[in-house]
Amino acid sequence: MKPAVTYELIKTDKATGARAGIIHTPHGSFPTPMFMPVGTLATVKTMAPEDLKEMNAGIILSNTYHLWLRPGHELIREAGGLHKFMNWDQPILTDSGGFQVFSLSKIRDIKEEGVHFRSHLDGSKLFLSPEKAIEIQEALGSDIMMSFDECPPYPASREYMIQSMARTTRWAERGLKAHTTMDKQSLFGIVQGGVYADLRQQHAKELASLDFPGYSIGGLSVGEEKHLMNEALEATTPFLPADKPRYLMGVGSPDALIDGVIRGIDMFDCVLPTRIARNGTTMTSQGRVVIKNKIYEKDFGPLDPNCDCHVCKNYSRAYIRHLVKAKESFGIRLTSYHNLHFLIKLMENVREAIMEDRLLAFREEFFEQYGYNKPNPRNF
Amino acid sequence: MKPAVTYELIKTDKATGARAGIIHTPHGSFPTPMFMPVGTLATVKTMAPEDLKEMNAGIILSNTYHLWLRPGHELIREAGGLHKFMNWDQPILTDSGGFQVFSLSKIRDIKEEGVHFRSHLDGSKLFLSPEKAIEIQEALGSDIMMSFDECPPYPASREYMIQSMARTTRWAERGLKAHTTMDKQSLFGIVQGGVYADLRQQHAKELASLDFPGYSIGGLSVGEEKHLMNEALEATTPFLPADKPRYLMGVGSPDALIDGVIRGIDMFDCVLPTRIARNGTTMTSQGRVVIKNKIYEKDFGPLDPNCDCHVCKNYSRAYIRHLVKAKESFGIRLTSYHNLHFLIKLMENVREAIMEDRLLAFREEFFEQYGYNKPNPRNF
Repeated sequence: MKPAVTYELIKTDKATGARAGIIHTPHGSFPTPMFMPVGTLATVKTMAPEDLKEMNAGIILSNTYHLWLRPGHELIREAGGLHKFMNWDQPILTDSGGFQVFSLSKIRDIKEEGVHFRSHLDGSKLFLSPEKAIEIQEALGSDIMMSFDECPPYPASREYMIQSMARTTRWAERGLKAHTTMDKQSLFGIVQGGVYADLRQQHAKELASLDFPGYSIGGLSVGEEKHLMNEALEATTPFLPADKPRYLMGVGSPDALIDGVIRGIDMFDCVLPTRIARNGTTMTSQGRVVIKNKIYEKDFGPLDPNCDCHVCKNYSRAYIRHLVKAKESFGIRLTSYHNLHFLIKLMENVREAIMEDRLLAFREEFFEQYGYNKPNPRNF
Repeated sequence: MKPAVTYELIKTDKATGARAGIIHTPHGSFPTPMFMPVGTLATVKTMAPEDLKEMNAGIILSNTYHLWLRPGHELIREAGGLHKFMNWDQPILTDSGGFQVFSLSKIRDIKEEGVHFRSHLDGSKLFLSPEKAIEIQEALGSDIMMSFDECPPYPASREYMIQSMARTTRWAERGLKAHTTMDKQSLFGIVQGGVYADLRQQHAKELASLDFPGYSIGGLSVGEEKHLMNEALEATTPFLPADKPRYLMGVGSPDALIDGVIRGIDMFDCVLPTRIARNGTTMTSQGRVVIKNKIYEKDFGPLDPNCDCHVCKNYSRAYIRHLVKAKESFGIRLTSYHNLHFLIKLMENVREAIMEDRLLAFREEFFEQYGYNKPNPRNF
């Protein structure tokens, strides 16, 4: 049977092998590379579905763990699934809850059958397993589901990583067995292995042999230096099947997106653009603009003079600064919109560069303009 | 010279004399009766200008006092005026700051020249006068400006009210003299007089003799019983010129809107729909819906089955409840949108009833459906 989600390769960049493609899902197709806005609780914070469509968001992500707790996956099933519940008729990807179990719960007990842990909301006892993660995601009805995995902390010892990877593989196999809706939803396997190149390679091969319809790369962007992420990707993607989509989890800084695409990644997600937006920090073609700064008080120009988004066409830095300082939620709506548009548009530009075999030149120019070549390395 | 803002009468309801009209301004015309959303700090909380246009908001209100403090009227002047600053190209009405001086500042010293008071933000000393209120509003560039008035507390003694009214009249005359932009902005006089019918009549006549392009009725909806507001209106509107617009300030409950129109009012504003929305309370054709209530947990129907707004067409009570409970700002965006649409649509329906000479029947039916005839009088 043909998987619900398939990858169509359109073009590879000659110098890097970076891929431009199309991912087809039961809720429509979207071009890759693609940045996916994160809608943790069935809403991309401050954004309406129309806003997301206007900025060409081809797919959004939502969080299994959070929806399981609030409002509950059975309620969403009764509502007709997550698409209908949140009024989003385009593709949705859900994670497995694995990352939240490890990032939000301080007390957890990892067993072969699954993980016992505590709710970050009320401390109540919870248990998540490969089968439970599938059950929840089938209730949600996302187009792309994730296998339940362990996301080990960074740094983790080689010995621990070997054990953890093996368990994640066994959990991936259990997830595949539990999955019943292959015609409507596709399950991705998650490659772990930390920053150990040989383990990344080994785990990519192991999961590739399980023939998932797509692959995620997890356990990166968890505190390691950027060159380590890039090395881990280089050790992974060559061992993933070329005809399946590849998703780098939790990565959202512009440099990491471009460097990820260069290493064969098709999809990304991150809360970064919306999280920093809530503090009034925006991404522009000239680097970060922290809108609360006094220098923008009477700046009647757009957030980004090189941006054609709805916000930059209609609102000034002075206005957005006023709103953010006055804690008016419309200010956060504007910065969130701009930041999401920025990353989605960046991926459109990267795709165009791939089509024209000039991705490395694009990277060079972007890094220069954005300020990545300046001495300040904190410029996400 | 023809005033910048003019009133065109289209039809009066036979039984009540209620008016359907059109108000023409330099930024376009809008039908009356009209409810005006309040955009205190140059933004109608959570709403984009496109949202307001979609719900047929013909004019919005913004607050002189708040914009004077943040971001400052000179900054808005430099930005090209309030319309451009906030990306709203339709009519704007600004109040005079008089109400905020009395509602937000505990320490105030009323002199003939104006009012000395303290900022509600940082306690700094401020002074507002009829001339200053005009200066600020001319910098903002609103289509409709308000005279600086005293809004006396309720209850206020007859003696105090007589003195206060006389001062408000003198301030109105000073405002008229200070006003320099009659071709672009029209200044309304504000009728006071509390709940004293004879004083209302007297003040209406006094202000009418000053030949303002429009009239506001202030000092109501400040704690008095509803029948007292209606009686005050009945004592006022017959003495205002029939060819000028009439605006009842700060009134936003559905019953008061309908009863105000019946007594000859054309325009209303209130923070009520957006303020209660932030708490998850919504106005529907069947009365209040407090969306956090457990009964809506699995209610997959719209907020209001009789509403055709964007929110009711696309989102369920269960979804909105989930968002509001999870403190997701998109939930407040949805409830705010619905409530504003509700009052704007109510005024459209009232207008239609006037056109068909059936306003009293409309009132009867609306009050019955909304629950105003039930024993619970707290149903705003």
